[in-house]
Amino acid sequence: MLKSDFVAEISPEQDGKEVTVAGWVHTIRDLGGKKFILLRDRSGLGQIVIDKSNTKAFELSKDLTQESVILVKGIVKADKRAPNGVEIHANELEILSKAKAPLPLDVSGKVNADLDTRLRERLLDLRRLEMEAVIKIQSEAIRAFREYLYSQKFVEIFTPKIIATATEGGAQLFPVIYFGKEAFLAQSPQLYKELLAGTIERVFEVAPAWRAEESDTPYHLSEFLSADIEVAFADYNDIMNIVENTLDFMVNKVRNNCQKELKILNHTLPEIKKPIRRITYSEAIEILQSAGVNIKFGDDIGTPEQRILHQKLNEDLYFIIDWPSTARPFYTRRKSNNPELSESFDLIYRWVEIASGSSRNYKREVLEEELKSRGLNIASFEFFLKWFDYGMPPHAGVGIGVQRLMMLFTGLQNVKEISLFPRDKKRLVP
Amino acid sequence: MLKSDFVAEISPEQDGKEVTVAGWVHTIRDLGGKKFILLRDRSGLGQIVIDKSNTKAFELSKDLTQESVILVKGIVKADKRAPNGVEIHANELEILSKAKAPLPLDVSGKVNADLDTRLRERLLDLRRLEMEAVIKIQSEAIRAFREYLYSQKFVEIFTPKIIATATEGGAQLFPVIYFGKEAFLAQSPQLYKELLAGTIERVFEVAPAWRAEESDTPYHLSEFLSADIEVAFADYNDIMNIVENTLDFMVNKVRNNCQKELKILNHTLPEIKKPIRRITYSEAIEILQSAGVNIKFGDDIGTPEQRILHQKLNEDLYFIIDWPSTARPFYTRRKSNNPELSESFDLIYRWVEIASGSSRNYKREVLEEELKSRGLNIASFEFFLKWFDYGMPPHAGVGIGVQRLMMLFTGLQNVKEISLFPRDKKRLVP
Repeated sequence: MLKSDFVAEISPEQDGKEVTVAGWVHTIRDLGGKKFILLRDRSGLGQIVIDKSNTKAFELSKDLTQESVILVKGIVKADKRAPNGVEIHANELEILSKAKAPLPLDVSGKVNADLDTRLRERLLDLRRLEMEAVIKIQSEAIRAFREYLYSQKFVEIFTPKIIATATEGGAQLFPVIYFGKEAFLAQSPQLYKELLAGTIERVFEVAPAWRAEESDTPYHLSEFLSADIEVAFADYNDIMNIVENTLDFMVNKVRNNCQKELKILNHTLPEIKKPIRRITYSEAIEILQSAGVNIKFGDDIGTPEQRILHQKLNEDLYFIIDWPSTARPFYTRRKSNNPELSESFDLIYRWVEIASGSSRNYKREVLEEELKSRGLNIASFEFFLKWFDYGMPPHAGVGIGVQRLMMLFTGLQNVKEISLFPRDKKRLVP
Repeated sequence: MLKSDFVAEISPEQDGKEVTVAGWVHTIRDLGGKKFILLRDRSGLGQIVIDKSNTKAFELSKDLTQESVILVKGIVKADKRAPNGVEIHANELEILSKAKAPLPLDVSGKVNADLDTRLRERLLDLRRLEMEAVIKIQSEAIRAFREYLYSQKFVEIFTPKIIATATEGGAQLFPVIYFGKEAFLAQSPQLYKELLAGTIERVFEVAPAWRAEESDTPYHLSEFLSADIEVAFADYNDIMNIVENTLDFMVNKVRNNCQKELKILNHTLPEIKKPIRRITYSEAIEILQSAGVNIKFGDDIGTPEQRILHQKLNEDLYFIIDWPSTARPFYTRRKSNNPELSESFDLIYRWVEIASGSSRNYKREVLEEELKSRGLNIASFEFFLKWFDYGMPPHAGVGIGVQRLMMLFTGLQNVKEISLFPRDKKRLVP
């Protein structure tokens, strides 16, 4: 490795020691006989001092530009006034890669650029401390998601992403030309995770999924990350419990392990209540009607209505359960005591649906009936239906939109900021 | 949850306790006054006894077929002759889902079906104890892959899978119709992981990747899992060290946590030598020439040649390093002391390449030169090249074919067996 130390991890106890650091020139201050370079690497920021007496390094430093990549060998000097309480007094300086000036996006300051500019100049945008914090928080949160599920005897699965049949009808699918035949990109691992729950009972997956979203909103991506859970011998109440416990575990892990990143984002993580408040769809409709919204049983509850519910309920996180059966996909199980309603839930964060789950149908004749009533072609689902002849257990599950969930973890307001290289109707590069 | 216990985890110490188990009927033996059901769930197998005196359950059990899903409440009875030393004497039996007979594939016995049949009847195939073991070992191995990298300050990234430009030229890409425009499925996260190493230095990803493979071999899939690592301020030797340490960590974790699964597969994990043997490409060519192979500098070393090397070297795992520069992709860095050769490696398991890595070019003019010499269009790589104007550090990385690596972990000989629902030229369902 070219470097042996991370700049923000060097402590005053290392006073007098030699270190080798490398990273990006965050800012440069010129004090005549001294140059102060704020160096940035994955650990954060640290101060480098180049003295005039070190002729070679000082000469080289005259050429330095912001975001240039440098390698510095130097001696640690404890200094209370410096960031982290230390400065590195450079003995050797090497410019590994010199950046052009001016930069198309400022990395070191408060960002004033609009989202379009930021996404166009995305690599520089991702080098901002705020976005590095988002990347690290996401990594930690997903790590915690998996860790909790491993601890509950879940197994990670990898389902196919090129599929022959639309999961929930043919809308919003991206076609793929597959050896001359038409195929599609999976909208979700739904049917495959159900089948695998019919093998090893408790499965999860975190993987890309695609929807050809025409709408340009802060909550939609064409390519998103889906965190999926499916459990045999479970129903939707069990799944809501698992979601609560998983979220709680994730929040605690991120709170403990990403203190610095949360501070950079100036974000406080919410407490996850156990249980998270659960209201029925019918109750939600009543609340909305009382608030003067023109809505009736059977209508969708979208972001505008969820804004009102958020206000009325005074809850940042809540489940809406027991949705009308006809409003949910064919694999959703109806409530046995009231088949107009289904054993289903959406998890809402403020006014954004971040997860959707249900008990699933596990009897072939019921699945066929539900497909038929939705005008879907039973024959094209035979690859799925077939297995219900050979012992499929009752099962239930949930799909979580990861970038939406990351709004809760980062405080960001737009999933396009959270996706590293977002894809939408107008964005295919970078 | 419908069940409270996993059948293979019930121990003789629970003698006399009531348990509720559920799972699949693996086998049924009829002893006149008693029925013995071997029940299978995610934990393995356990024995249920239904006595004639329990009239209701006994009547129901007459209808039982293999792979039917049942729920059993019963009393644990320690019995040394039974599997795991216990039997469950059923008080209540419920058939949750009755399987049709006969099954299109036998789940309980040694499989005699050919691979085509197994992949067609895949859900039943995946219920065989051997395939459940494969799924669990893969989950554990990938968990260990990530855990090792987290411990080394790596961050998990999620790169876009729909891309505008071919990574290494246009061959073998699947076209996607993206809002009326042509786009492609990513062959690898190569260029994006390089950019992200230019942000937070140490990144990894485990995600699907696609190649339109025309060839039908035991080592190729159209959709495969790629485990990718990219590190700033590192070269190919650093990456080989990381690969060794990661593999060693994975092997130890799987050995400790999947003893039962390895036994089912009758597979012994290899020891990972540190260092893993490294031979140069030139040495490999010499060995092959001495063995009478008609090969010269610049030729590819494929599976037939690797079979000979495996024999001559007497190594199950070895690196071939320093490949001819022209044989590697444009982003591969040349050796400074011999530009005909590159700072590159392949990791070979027996006679299959399981990983490929290199030091990367990080100077724009070098990248442009390499693109040009390969007849690639510089303009279409501008989304990537642009960032090399703004401070890209020296970096290096590796891509690992997960299903190929799983051959080492499971002893299976064909990646189509390892992929849960493999995709190849003739397979798009199930």
